[in-house]
Amino acid sequence: MAKENQFVEQIADIDADFPQWYTDVVLKTKLVDYGPVKGTMVIRPYGYAIWENIQKEMDKRFKAQGVENAYFPLLIPMSFFTKEAEHVEGFAPEIAVVTVAGGEPLAEPLAIRPTSETIIGTMYSKWIQSYRDLPLKINQWCNVMRWEKTTRPFLRTSEFLWQEGHTVHATAEEAEEETQKMLEIYKEFAENCLAIPVITGKKTEKEKFAGAVATYGMEAMMHDGKSLQAGTSHYLGQNFASAFDIQFLDKDGTHKTAYTSSWGVSTRLIGAIIMTHGDSRGLVLPPVVAPVQCVIVPIAAKKAGVSEACAKLRDELEQAGVRVKLDDSENSPGWKFNEWEMKGVPVRIELGPRDLEAGKILCARRDTLEKSEMALSGAADGIRALLQTVQKDMLEAARKRRDGRIVYAKDMDEILAGVENGNFVKAGWCGCRECEDKIKEKTAASARVYAEGETAETCAVCGKKAKHMIIYARAY
Amino acid sequence: MAKENQFVEQIADIDADFPQWYTDVVLKTKLVDYGPVKGTMVIRPYGYAIWENIQKEMDKRFKAQGVENAYFPLLIPMSFFTKEAEHVEGFAPEIAVVTVAGGEPLAEPLAIRPTSETIIGTMYSKWIQSYRDLPLKINQWCNVMRWEKTTRPFLRTSEFLWQEGHTVHATAEEAEEETQKMLEIYKEFAENCLAIPVITGKKTEKEKFAGAVATYGMEAMMHDGKSLQAGTSHYLGQNFASAFDIQFLDKDGTHKTAYTSSWGVSTRLIGAIIMTHGDSRGLVLPPVVAPVQCVIVPIAAKKAGVSEACAKLRDELEQAGVRVKLDDSENSPGWKFNEWEMKGVPVRIELGPRDLEAGKILCARRDTLEKSEMALSGAADGIRALLQTVQKDMLEAARKRRDGRIVYAKDMDEILAGVENGNFVKAGWCGCRECEDKIKEKTAASARVYAEGETAETCAVCGKKAKHMIIYARAY
Repeated sequence: MAKENQFVEQIADIDADFPQWYTDVVLKTKLVDYGPVKGTMVIRPYGYAIWENIQKEMDKRFKAQGVENAYFPLLIPMSFFTKEAEHVEGFAPEIAVVTVAGGEPLAEPLAIRPTSETIIGTMYSKWIQSYRDLPLKINQWCNVMRWEKTTRPFLRTSEFLWQEGHTVHATAEEAEEETQKMLEIYKEFAENCLAIPVITGKKTEKEKFAGAVATYGMEAMMHDGKSLQAGTSHYLGQNFASAFDIQFLDKDGTHKTAYTSSWGVSTRLIGAIIMTHGDSRGLVLPPVVAPVQCVIVPIAAKKAGVSEACAKLRDELEQAGVRVKLDDSENSPGWKFNEWEMKGVPVRIELGPRDLEAGKILCARRDTLEKSEMALSGAADGIRALLQTVQKDMLEAARKRRDGRIVYAKDMDEILAGVENGNFVKAGWCGCRECEDKIKEKTAASARVYAEGETAETCAVCGKKAKHMIIYARAY
Repeated sequence: MAKENQFVEQIADIDADFPQWYTDVVLKTKLVDYGPVKGTMVIRPYGYAIWENIQKEMDKRFKAQGVENAYFPLLIPMSFFTKEAEHVEGFAPEIAVVTVAGGEPLAEPLAIRPTSETIIGTMYSKWIQSYRDLPLKINQWCNVMRWEKTTRPFLRTSEFLWQEGHTVHATAEEAEEETQKMLEIYKEFAENCLAIPVITGKKTEKEKFAGAVATYGMEAMMHDGKSLQAGTSHYLGQNFASAFDIQFLDKDGTHKTAYTSSWGVSTRLIGAIIMTHGDSRGLVLPPVVAPVQCVIVPIAAKKAGVSEACAKLRDELEQAGVRVKLDDSENSPGWKFNEWEMKGVPVRIELGPRDLEAGKILCARRDTLEKSEMALSGAADGIRALLQTVQKDMLEAARKRRDGRIVYAKDMDEILAGVENGNFVKAGWCGCRECEDKIKEKTAASARVYAEGETAETCAVCGKKAKHMIIYARAY
């Protein structure tokens, strides 16, 4: 067992120094590297493959909703941002600006998109004429840029990859429904594909998207009890439609201003996967998005028949649609166990001469570290079933961990104690910005979302009658 | 038949004014729109769906070669470009520069990538230590920016989407082999997926990529006889590896400088599809990448059973993996015929009461405009076969058109006459830059590629002994 620990030493202790554990894990598993420009990241093949799997699963869901993909320009005239007052206030401080191009100074500086409501709104205004053009539902997969002071790979970087959906509707009801529908899709995706249980709900005015009427978020609890906003869906009302003149001729012959929504998730989700499921040995990846779902480690590979049997099993698993890797490198089995455990591969198969003789394989689950035997013949079906079990169990385990860490608080001290112990804290709120600010100031926790369907007696800050129950947490 | 022409009038005559035809077609079929910043384009859903199909087909081929995807930062410190002398000279005039970010001027201006050799080289230098790390083959799908004076959607825009593959090898031979291999993959893809016959070959020094040892291109003949460079593969030798210090410890225990290659295709390919196959009615899309492969137009849709039969057929085709659309809008069949012809849908199915009674459907091919009947029962197999036939025939028809327009020239006058008549012209070349420049100056044609396996007696310009046979053409 000594060998099995050689890698563990290279990763900081997950409970003693979680931030260092995170940095160690993302770098050592080659998910990501730092780019040469401060605050930028390189998403390496192992990390990008997770993103590709996320894209595939999400894109399927979007298309099933009648959403089409398109691509809008990276550069947006700075003047576009000023058309929506709240929007410019929210984003101006983070914008990267192109002032020179083709060897000459530009007449108007151009922003690298931090988000694309303004440029997409401009095009929609041109494309939409009649109610027949509605609803219009377009998504784009792209890079965006927000100049951040403090950055961490996947969680907050100056450039990141995301999808941004932008829809236009004839009525407020329809746009609100779309906003909710996409939030539901995000939730279903997070739970079923990433095995991350999320709490969805409305954000406070303070925390909403700059320019939205209402923002809905999904919040996930990380290993340290902090919250990560894993996706947002915004009901924009007529704010952008008015600013960008998105009008349509309705059935009744009058011109009306449309209603819009926007929604997005980003490469942050990879950070959420790492910090939800990771353990002292490194990554634990959910099978649906794991680049490698199953690794085969030959034991005593030079013994008769072993490498042939491993190769045959690899081919069978591939045939069955399993993303499998046969590690036939010259490293020792112990080294390989550690390597693939650190990389979070959901299932490891060990196959040696004695297994071969007995017609079985040894399967080690990454999530529970449990080992079990399986018949070599017809193993593909067994492995597929095992991957499904792992996927399901990971969600349930994460849900159990999270649910045990949601507490109620009556006053500021209890909120502080709650978040210091790594909990999500539910507490009453009178609804005023002042109380919300005070909590942030004294506990470093923010209002994540309204706790839907729950009510409270009094505001934990001012003691006045509570209008809402809020989920407070420190957040990434 | 009058109705069938209502759209044709909206598109400029393809032979009288090909540039206007192109602009009309890309805008009216909603492939693309102009972005608000000069020289930028918005790729609309119908155009982006073609790109998605291109990506899917290409990505499959790359992965089969052991290439992995990754993502590198958009912004590159300007100083990186100066490390490779030819490279900076070639790209500096086209770079868009970020000088302000987060509200402050940047200490070092940052380039928006025009291509990523420099930033990828920097990372490779860090990642590669030993021969065991080689070969390294990474591709990225991304946006790039080249500030162009004259722009046209898909063909030349300040921002475009592309893939760029970057590989590192221990030996020159291996890197050269990779360069050739990717060129072959591009050719196979262009011919089998886009139905575009291409001529591949080496580029002259004048035409090669800035910083390459050798550039290989694939050239396609457009409707007007001009050439479009549809993809390039560069053997970079040790130029970038030296500039960016990509070294590895070889088996023999010595440190060696690696050899690299890079290769790319872009959204230009969509322009190539349009200009290779388009006709007086608009687009003609090859089935493999067509967003809609087959459209069903109900005739007398209100008659008993028609719309049900159309819906059932749509479901059957979908089940069979055909990208099908049932146009059940309120427009007339004639209007629909024109619309979908303009949009280039490979196969149109007409189904009316009489067809239903006879148990058949009418199929109209977009490429040949031929109509044929097919049994309604089991039509999915028939349509799939028909789509394959269309795909194959489109390539052969394009090849025939092109092959009839490749001529030989002995002197400058013949070259000029050849290109003025919309031909590719093969002529001898002594190998000197002066003669190459003269041809460009007098005929507006450039050396596209060396005509492989062919020799010439004399240089068409100076009359001296020819070292090579060159394919000259005017180009996009």
